[in-house]
Order: sequence, then C-alpha cells, then structure tokens
Amino acid sequence: MNAVFYHAGCPVCVEAEQQLAKSLDPTRYSVEVVHLGTDSSRLLEAESMGVKSVPALVLDGTVFHINHGADLSALKA
Amino acid sequence: MNAVFYHAGCPVCVEAEQQLAKSLDPTRYSVEVVHLGTDSSRLLEAESMGVKSVPALVLDGTVFHINHGADLSALKA
Repeated sequence: MNAVFYHAGCPVCVEAEQQLAKSLDPTRYSVEVVHLGTDSSRLLEAESMGVKSVPALVLDGTVFHINHGADLSALKA
Repeated sequence: MNAVFYHAGCPVCVEAEQQLAKSLDPTRYSVEVVHLGTDSSRLLEAESMGVKSVPALVLDGTVFHINHGADLSALKA
C-alpha cells in the first residue's frame, strides 16, 4: 500500500477523497482510506507519518495536507 | 484542461508537483502546470478559481490547497 488517505468524515475530507484521492493513477497507486474518527487505533501511525491535520494523503511516505478539515489533536480522546 | 497545478517554484511546490500532480490518472486528467511567480498574468485567474496559496491543484473546478508554500498575496507585485 503506497498511498494512504487519512480523513475524519468531515465535508472537506469527503470532497478531497472523492475528487483527489480517487483521481490518482490506479496503475501506480492503491489508495487505502482510513477514517481516524472511527479508527482511532491508526492515530499514532498517522502522527508518526507526519500527519498534522485531515484530510491528508500520504504518497510513498510524503505527507500532503489537503485543505483543512480538522487538526489531528482534535481527534484524540 | 480539467486539472491545473498552480505553484511558485518553492520547495514545497516542487515536491507537490513531482509527487502529487504527476500521480493523477493520465487517462482522466491532463495537468497544466502554471508558475505564478513567472507568469503573473495568471494570478487573477487563480484568484478567481479560489486559490488562496500555492501549491494548489484545481480539479474540475474544485481547489485543493496542498501543504503551504506561499500565500497568493505574497506573489502580487
């Protein structure tokens, strides 16, 4: 899995997922979609990748923060 | 042209261009790359599309601000 799209279900996240994450070349990228709001067990992983806010797309280890839906800190209990 | 990548030559911009803009599905998107630092005649167009900072990718009319290199206002003379 070389592309991970982290989101939290927010409108900004959904737009980014539908229009950007799904626009990647399917012959080169297989995008895993992770909802940090419902799968908080992935928060630490996202944080260690350098994700500061969602939506964020990690491509081959590089983090791209796309627009701004919510800070990662807001998703922590 | 359904995808336009606006940048200003900054390191953050180059990374986003190389890794994100070039990862779009070529069968669906033809990406035009516009350097607003050298082609200031496109500033007004970018602004009217809703671009606030670069790098930014406009897909089918929707603006995605990717990380943050520079505010559009900083590129105006």
